[in-house]
Amino acid sequence: MRQAGRSLPEYRAARGSGTILEAIARPEVVTEVTLQPVRRYGTDAAIFFSDIVVPVAAVGFGVDVAPGTGPVVPSPFSSAADLRRLRPLDPDRDTPYVLEAVRMLRRELHVPLIGFAGGPFTVASYLVEGGPSRNFTRIKALMHTDPVLWHDLAERLTDLALASLRSQLDAGASAVQVFDSWAGILTPRDYATLVLPSTRRLFAELARSHPAAPRILFGVGTGELLASMAASGATVIGVDWRVPLDEARHRVGPAIAVQGNLDPALCLAPWDVVADEVADVVERAGDAPGHIFNLGHGVLPETDPGILAQVVDLVHRTGRAGVGRL
Amino acid sequence: MRQAGRSLPEYRAARGSGTILEAIARPEVVTEVTLQPVRRYGTDAAIFFSDIVVPVAAVGFGVDVAPGTGPVVPSPFSSAADLRRLRPLDPDRDTPYVLEAVRMLRRELHVPLIGFAGGPFTVASYLVEGGPSRNFTRIKALMHTDPVLWHDLAERLTDLALASLRSQLDAGASAVQVFDSWAGILTPRDYATLVLPSTRRLFAELARSHPAAPRILFGVGTGELLASMAASGATVIGVDWRVPLDEARHRVGPAIAVQGNLDPALCLAPWDVVADEVADVVERAGDAPGHIFNLGHGVLPETDPGILAQVVDLVHRTGRAGVGRL
Repeated sequence: MRQAGRSLPEYRAARGSGTILEAIARPEVVTEVTLQPVRRYGTDAAIFFSDIVVPVAAVGFGVDVAPGTGPVVPSPFSSAADLRRLRPLDPDRDTPYVLEAVRMLRRELHVPLIGFAGGPFTVASYLVEGGPSRNFTRIKALMHTDPVLWHDLAERLTDLALASLRSQLDAGASAVQVFDSWAGILTPRDYATLVLPSTRRLFAELARSHPAAPRILFGVGTGELLASMAASGATVIGVDWRVPLDEARHRVGPAIAVQGNLDPALCLAPWDVVADEVADVVERAGDAPGHIFNLGHGVLPETDPGILAQVVDLVHRTGRAGVGRL
Repeated sequence: MRQAGRSLPEYRAARGSGTILEAIARPEVVTEVTLQPVRRYGTDAAIFFSDIVVPVAAVGFGVDVAPGTGPVVPSPFSSAADLRRLRPLDPDRDTPYVLEAVRMLRRELHVPLIGFAGGPFTVASYLVEGGPSRNFTRIKALMHTDPVLWHDLAERLTDLALASLRSQLDAGASAVQVFDSWAGILTPRDYATLVLPSTRRLFAELARSHPAAPRILFGVGTGELLASMAASGATVIGVDWRVPLDEARHRVGPAIAVQGNLDPALCLAPWDVVADEVADVVERAGDAPGHIFNLGHGVLPETDPGILAQVVDLVHRTGRAGVGRL
């Protein structure tokens, strides 16, 4: 459950008052807030506390994360000259705090740690739009007006994600999750021709260097992209709450596991409604070839932690699907 | 093309500086801005210039439309007592300016006029959330915590939409379109159990009073809801750009026409890319049982009107699908 910790009082206490990028640069903070939801809920895996802009910020592109807004880029990516602002990532030198936090977590955790990176389209959208976007007009215009530049940008971002994920795996993560959260804004055709190729390379290279590590790919509103995503080389596809998991299985095919997909907003409903929805998710997911129970998107800040604890407990009692089990 | 006029210079000139609700109260302004895109682009139908909150505002619920934001509700709907703020609509007394504008358009237009109303979920979301929402947590919490109150609210809003659409048809509109724009935020299960029943009643009553008028139902991100929407009594389902129209046809079945679905952001691409996408939409739509070529959502403000004129012209030249033809 991405952001599972962010609704917890102990999260706010550990985070302090700095920005999220400042917190991410402090391994003891990252370790603590990554552990908190595991400790409180007893999930079967932990997701590394990070942000999708960490690699681009670390190579000096010029990006910050504004509280309540998200990533903001004062000088957006607009031409080939901006590619120079995306030099290769040297994880030991550029993000030593990430590696230190992963190593600390490896010692503390009794469940697998899932490494974290943003997907190329979603990271690119922030760089090109200059911040969160409603209609993604600039990034779409770039993709169609200058497909060569788009290709170069996507490849650079793929290299950054690859270097970061490999370093997390080398430091002790057991799996990876790529958050291409906003890919669902694209037509299936644009996703297949303009985003899938770099995603496919990312997973192929990870499969070569770390063949045993499960590879999860997640996005919101991706109902029509699931077949493409299943062809990316990911071994698990995360699905939001819009697509029932039996239908998602149908689209991703028999070789791919699914992750999801309780509507986070449903967690604000009375318990009997939540329990009924959890049962529905587990039932539709079925048994094979693997299901990671999860919310369909991040935990909403208003969520009562007690309800999440009950959800995890209920899923464990069904005995049919792990909570974050890989 | 909803909001097709909003990117036109002549629209800004006609609108003047008042709020949108003030503009909607002036029949000569509504007539002019409804005509503008037909005049400029030669579309085969006109969509009545309005806003989904017109009926609730007219019965005094307390709602305004803030420029650049959308509907805002200073005192949101929160309990059964608020149902009193949603008395029945008397179109002659409450919205005479709507009827006057429809009558003026009936005289001016040589193509059909499509009447306009918001769908019950989308209008309710503004009333309950207090304005535009990202996660729709309050409305979902209400739907699940107090389904009886939700039912009563949805029924009141259905009555308002029904009265408004009937009055537009009586005054000379030839068809109706219901914009349940944000329904795609719901799970298929929630849509089917909590929204479809009132939508079904709305269309059943319209079919009884105005059997010849086509009934269009539109929402964004509704890929998984299309089968339910096709069972609503609508005769045309509007589809956004995420679902290819051949797949949409498969989901809505052989008895329903489709409307859509060029990605509005694609209109910012070079013409050869746009032309290729238009051809793809027309090809996938096929011939039967009817296709209304349209964008998949509203026209983006940055759009060059010249590109839209070329799109309309290209669709006309294919000879396979009307632009707004009913």
